Amino acid sequence: MKKILNEVDQAVEQMVEGLVKTHRDLIYRVAGTRVIARNDKRPGKVGLVSGGGSGHEPAHAGYVGKGMLSAAVCGDVFTSPTPDQILEGIKAADQGNGVLLIVKNYTGDVMNFEMAAELAEAEDIRVASVLVNDDIAVEDSSFTTGRRGVAGTVFVHKIVGAAAEAGASLEELQALGEKVVASVKSIGAALSAGTVPEVGHRGFELLEDEIEVGVGIHGEPGSSREKVMTSHELANLLFARINAELILGADNNIVVLINGMGATPLMEQYIFANDVHKIIAAHGIPIVKTIVGDFMTSLDMNGLSLTILKLTDEKWLDMLDYPVVTSAWK
Amino acid sequence: MKKILNEVDQAVEQMVEGLVKTHRDLIYRVAGTRVIARNDKRPGKVGLVSGGGSGHEPAHAGYVGKGMLSAAVCGDVFTSPTPDQILEGIKAADQGNGVLLIVKNYTGDVMNFEMAAELAEAEDIRVASVLVNDDIAVEDSSFTTGRRGVAGTVFVHKIVGAAAEAGASLEELQALGEKVVASVKSIGAALSAGTVPEVGHRGFELLEDEIEVGVGIHGEPGSSREKVMTSHELANLLFARINAELILGADNNIVVLINGMGATPLMEQYIFANDVHKIIAAHGIPIVKTIVGDFMTSLDMNGLSLTILKLTDEKWLDMLDYPVVTSAWK
Repeated sequence: MKKILNEVDQAVEQMVEGLVKTHRDLIYRVAGTRVIARNDKRPGKVGLVSGGGSGHEPAHAGYVGKGMLSAAVCGDVFTSPTPDQILEGIKAADQGNGVLLIVKNYTGDVMNFEMAAELAEAEDIRVASVLVNDDIAVEDSSFTTGRRGVAGTVFVHKIVGAAAEAGASLEELQALGEKVVASVKSIGAALSAGTVPEVGHRGFELLEDEIEVGVGIHGEPGSSREKVMTSHELANLLFARINAELILGADNNIVVLINGMGATPLMEQYIFANDVHKIIAAHGIPIVKTIVGDFMTSLDMNGLSLTILKLTDEKWLDMLDYPVVTSAWK
Repeated sequence: MKKILNEVDQAVEQMVEGLVKTHRDLIYRVAGTRVIARNDKRPGKVGLVSGGGSGHEPAHAGYVGKGMLSAAVCGDVFTSPTPDQILEGIKAADQGNGVLLIVKNYTGDVMNFEMAAELAEAEDIRVASVLVNDDIAVEDSSFTTGRRGVAGTVFVHKIVGAAAEAGASLEELQALGEKVVASVKSIGAALSAGTVPEVGHRGFELLEDEIEVGVGIHGEPGSSREKVMTSHELANLLFARINAELILGADNNIVVLINGMGATPLMEQYIFANDVHKIIAAHGIPIVKTIVGDFMTSLDMNGLSLTILKLTDEKWLDMLDYPVVTSAWK
C-alpha cells in the first residue's frame, strides 16, 4: 500500500485537522470531537446534520456551510460515528428549532443516528431524520438491510439545505427530504477497489478485464461482475437499470450526477457524461442540469456512479442552484 | 489498461463534448475546433486564453468563465494544440481590446502559442503572453527548456482573471501575470505515473516502496527517486525545496495550493495539508489561504504537488477571492 499518510490509525484525525486548517473561514471542529460545524449560525434556523464513516470525501464535511449542512460527523474509515459523537453534531447544529439528520442507509449509521436522536430528545432538542437509500444495485448488502445510500445523498443535502436556509420547519424539511429520496436513484461501477489505510490492501480484487457493476461505496459486492466494456456500453447499462426504476419520459425533467469514486480521472468522467447525454437524448428525456466530479468517493476506488434525480417538483432546480458557501459544492 | 473510454483516439474529442454538454450554461465549443469559450462576452474586456495538452483536467477548460479565462484550447493528451486551434481560441476571446495568452513553459506550447500570436496580429488582434514556469524541481526536462509550468498556473488564471474582469488593459494584465509568476513556486511527487490512453501503460514504473520527487505533470522525471516516506516527511521535503527559492519569513503572507494529480484521494490531500500547515506554522510564516483539490492533474497519476504563492501584493488575496463562475474554481 502506497499512500500519503503518517500513522495509519491517525488518518481520520489528521484529515479532520487538515480540513479545518484549510477551510477555517467556513468551518470549525467542535473541541474534543470529530464534528465539523459551520461558523455562521442563525438563531431559529433548523439544523442539518449528516455524516457517517470517513473515506467518502468530500462527503460529508465538504458540504458543511451556508446553504447546506450545519454539521458533519466523521466516523473512522467506513465506520459509523458513535452516538455520542453524533449527539455533539446535533448540539452544534441546534439553533432552537430542531435538527434534521440525513442518514445513509447502513445498519451501523441507522442505529447510531437513532440512538443519538434519542439522547438529543432527552436534552430537549427536537430531532427528525431522513434515510437515504438511492443505490438500486442490490437489496440488502454487507452492511445494509434494504438499499444502500450513496451519491444521491448530496442532492438531499443540497435541496433540503436550500429549504432550511429559506426558513422551512423541521417537519417540512423531513417531508421534503423524503420526497427527494423517493425521486433519486443511483448505481455505480468499479474498475478497482479502494484501500482502507488500516487494512493495507484493496477491498477486493478484479482481473485486468473485469469491472464490478453495482459496487457499494465501501467496496460491497455489486450485482454482477462483467467483462470490461466501453464507456458507452457502461452508460447504457447503468442508465437502463435506473430507468427501470424511475420510468422516465419526455415529460420528466431530470438532473444527472456523474460521481467519481476517488481515483477516476476527470477526463474519463466527462467522456462518460458525453455517453450518458447521448443515451438520454435518444430517449427524449430532458436533462436540465448535469454535475460531474468527485462527490461521494470510496478512498482510492477507480470507478464512478450515475445518479438521476427526477424533478417531481420544478422548484428543486432552483434549490440545487441556490448559492452555497461550502468547500465542496460549487 | 482499464479506463472508462470508447475509441482511445477519440478520448479528447469525447471529453470536450462531455464538458460542453455538462456546462452548457457557462461554456460552448467553437464549431469545428477544440476551443472551449465562455458564453458571456463583454465588449472591451481583454480576453484571456490558456490551454495546452489535455490530461490535466480540470485545467484548462474548467477555468473558463466569468472572472477567469475567456477560452481554453484543448490539445491531444499531453500534446500542445496547434497554432490554428490556438488562433481560434484567440478569436473567440477577442472583444476588441487584445488577448493575453497564459502559457505553461513547454517547448511545444511556447512555439505554437507564439505562432498563433503572430497569426492573430496579422488579423489585427493585439496579443501579449505570460509564460508560467513555477516548477522548481528541475532545470530543463523532457519537453522543456528552463522550468516547467505546473499547478501555479491556476493562480495566474485566477488573479489575472479578476483584474481582466475589473477592466485592466492588456499591458497591465501582462505585467501582473509576470509578477505573479515570479512569486509562485511548485514541486510535486508521484506514487504512481499516469496512463496515456493511446499508450496503454503507465508512463513510468515505481517500485512498491518508491516515490518520484519533483515529477512533471506529463510524467517527466523528477529530481530524485526516494523511498516511500510519511506525509509529514514529504511535506517537509517539498516545503524546504520551495522555501529555498522564496525565502519566506514572518512578514510574508502566503497562499498554499495542495494539488491532487488525478488519482489521489481527498483524504490524503487533507492529511498532507495538515502537515504542510504544521511545518509552515513552525517557521512562523502566515498562511492567509489554503486550497486543496485536483486543479492541474496528470490523468490517473497518484501523487500531489505543493504550490506556494508569496503575496507580494496584498490585493492578490482579494483577487483570489473575487467571485467567479466556472466549473472548476469555487
